[in-house]
Amino acid sequence: MPAHAPAPHTPVPHAAAPDAPIAPAQPQAASRRGFAPWLAQTNDVTSVFLAAGQIPDLINLGGGLPEPSLWPVEELADLAAAVIRSHPAEALGYGPIPGLPALRDLIAARCSTANLRLTRDNVLITTGGMQALELVGKVLLQPGGTVAAQSPAYLGALDAWRPHVPRYRPMRIERNDHDPRAAMQGAQFAYTVPNFSNPSGRLVSLPERQALVAAAHETGTWLIEDDPYGVLYYEGAPLPRLLDLSAAGHPGPYAGPVVYMGSLSKELTPGLRIGWVVAAPAMIAALATAKQGSDMCTSGLSQMLALRALEGGMTERIRPAILSLYRARRDALCAAMREHLAGDLDWQVPSGGMFVWATARDPRLDTDRLLQVGLAHGVCISPSSVFDPQGQDRRSLRINFTLNPPEALEEGCRRLARAIRATLAAAE
Amino acid sequence: MPAHAPAPHTPVPHAAAPDAPIAPAQPQAASRRGFAPWLAQTNDVTSVFLAAGQIPDLINLGGGLPEPSLWPVEELADLAAAVIRSHPAEALGYGPIPGLPALRDLIAARCSTANLRLTRDNVLITTGGMQALELVGKVLLQPGGTVAAQSPAYLGALDAWRPHVPRYRPMRIERNDHDPRAAMQGAQFAYTVPNFSNPSGRLVSLPERQALVAAAHETGTWLIEDDPYGVLYYEGAPLPRLLDLSAAGHPGPYAGPVVYMGSLSKELTPGLRIGWVVAAPAMIAALATAKQGSDMCTSGLSQMLALRALEGGMTERIRPAILSLYRARRDALCAAMREHLAGDLDWQVPSGGMFVWATARDPRLDTDRLLQVGLAHGVCISPSSVFDPQGQDRRSLRINFTLNPPEALEEGCRRLARAIRATLAAAE
Repeated sequence: MPAHAPAPHTPVPHAAAPDAPIAPAQPQAASRRGFAPWLAQTNDVTSVFLAAGQIPDLINLGGGLPEPSLWPVEELADLAAAVIRSHPAEALGYGPIPGLPALRDLIAARCSTANLRLTRDNVLITTGGMQALELVGKVLLQPGGTVAAQSPAYLGALDAWRPHVPRYRPMRIERNDHDPRAAMQGAQFAYTVPNFSNPSGRLVSLPERQALVAAAHETGTWLIEDDPYGVLYYEGAPLPRLLDLSAAGHPGPYAGPVVYMGSLSKELTPGLRIGWVVAAPAMIAALATAKQGSDMCTSGLSQMLALRALEGGMTERIRPAILSLYRARRDALCAAMREHLAGDLDWQVPSGGMFVWATARDPRLDTDRLLQVGLAHGVCISPSSVFDPQGQDRRSLRINFTLNPPEALEEGCRRLARAIRATLAAAE
Repeated sequence: MPAHAPAPHTPVPHAAAPDAPIAPAQPQAASRRGFAPWLAQTNDVTSVFLAAGQIPDLINLGGGLPEPSLWPVEELADLAAAVIRSHPAEALGYGPIPGLPALRDLIAARCSTANLRLTRDNVLITTGGMQALELVGKVLLQPGGTVAAQSPAYLGALDAWRPHVPRYRPMRIERNDHDPRAAMQGAQFAYTVPNFSNPSGRLVSLPERQALVAAAHETGTWLIEDDPYGVLYYEGAPLPRLLDLSAAGHPGPYAGPVVYMGSLSKELTPGLRIGWVVAAPAMIAALATAKQGSDMCTSGLSQMLALRALEGGMTERIRPAILSLYRARRDALCAAMREHLAGDLDWQVPSGGMFVWATARDPRLDTDRLLQVGLAHGVCISPSSVFDPQGQDRRSLRINFTLNPPEALEEGCRRLARAIRATLAAAE
């Protein structure tokens, strides 16, 4: 299940080895050529979640969905009609591959600071944040290429790059002995989610950020800063982005190693599928060439809606309500975890984002099993195996707190505690 | 320039060999790892068209744009506001990866016939027709794989598959000695545009269609039927689709070799980015897995708009106006070509679609050169080299007739005639 969007309705692929016969379609048809082998490498978590959608009264702590009541539905409805009437060519026609110029300009201005000057040539509009990850894979990865990835890693990034069959070099940024330079040396790129990482919820510290940027400069490696949760700080002032740190002391249009990714999914609505990449012009040009062959251009209607919503301050107006609601839900989840799960799990309270990452105290707790047993107990979590490129880590789980109200979060923790006991009992 | 959409604003990629240094971004930065080598294989036609956009009074016969005055702007504006208000979860939230169930059901019903029974499991919604091509490449192509492609081939398909570096086996379907079985044997898939092919404008005949389907069954090869122009028949009754022919005599849900691709871009508006694939459930499942890593899901707002527009008969209401206008423009272009270009070019009048394909009588006419000389004469065409996977064919050109009114089409032909003379004079 992708963490940005747990859309739980995908059928399971009938993957097969190359040239292996797939189920013959019609009696007289010869076996058709098989699918690419990477399809056999996908995990079945999506089909598990599909089945979960049928369970009555299930409490879903496994996804990464926003709270829909926060969306400014009436305002967006009026705006959609207005932009189609005022800008039919932009809203309904083909647009420039890298995005509408006015929206690229606005994102450039919005991401600029006193020390970071961005222009339109630094910006690509993407069809959601996921497309940014896919395009980076297309322009940088070849079979056998290496990705240095913050570990545990966002499942959606693993999905996006799976067709290229990369090798992963895990980066345990929080460890004292972590050497980002060694991790990046020879890698095609490094992948990080510095703000409230998915799945770990961890905030990468300022010294760790500085070390990542220094290593990127020294090794000549592209450094991906995936930042869907940068607007979801519940405490403290936002830390400087890798993008900012990599530009410090270098005036002029940005041309550094960081490939920054943002989206409207968390601060407005996900269904518009609007994301952006901020990077050196050479990288933006390469990504635009890849985008031409992926979907030609992002929906003009979505882009015009995003432009007017951002220009009109819609995201700033709704942000206090988002932060207040999600902060309260995080607190409710963590309180319930302290009451019901303190003996079973270790975790740190995240200072932002959408997830709590918890690790079993008992090494016999297999969280792949816990997912199944939890479903039988009416609660759904995300097991750590899906955030591990090798699928090996079965000791941890990801718990979402943005979708459910406090009562459901508490009941979910009660059910989870029962499911943990049942899982451990079965393991004995 | 992509033929479905000539969006002419992409910057030229600064491609480089793998691990070759690209322009250093900042004085102290090491050279960053280079881009994947396929980026160096792109042609520069997009940048040529970008420059062309700056030429005053240029007559653009090179693209594949629809006539915007045909779009039902007011209706779509009202509908957009209505679907956001009535279905905020579907329009603004994450949706199922293969598409909204109601839209999949509607496409299944719309594409079904008395002899072809389709269900939701036969349908995937894509982000425009281009994404369907990209996803097919992802699930079927590995490096060194072979594509049997109708020749000349749609540029956008070549763009979509370029990252996989396929080998192409040209299919000259119209030749008497063409053997589709030999072409398909051992290929990962065959690619065809049977209705008014882009760029050739050619309608694949019924016997040719039957031979393609028989070869797909016999060789076990997937057979792509890309059909953006199937709604643009200006004369005669539509021929059976490969999809229909491949299902004949086989009752039950479709499970045959054809992978059919349609879109709303020609019969409604392109900017919504709504396309669909109709295929066997195993293929749909594989494509959905690939789509999960490409853009997670297609814009919910676009999908809800497409659903309501199709349900309400909007496409049927506007179709007569589209057909009448485009038929008249085709006639105007062909009349002007007969008057101004009959001595220079050979062509056949297409019975549908958006393009006339013309071949120079004088073998010394290089249409890559003609593109450049034409721009100096105020007219833009698409040279044949961009529709040839090897970039070798410089003898033909593609002329669009849907975007310009008759006067501009005639003036464009006058300029093209002058440009041909100038190109030939320079070649002597």
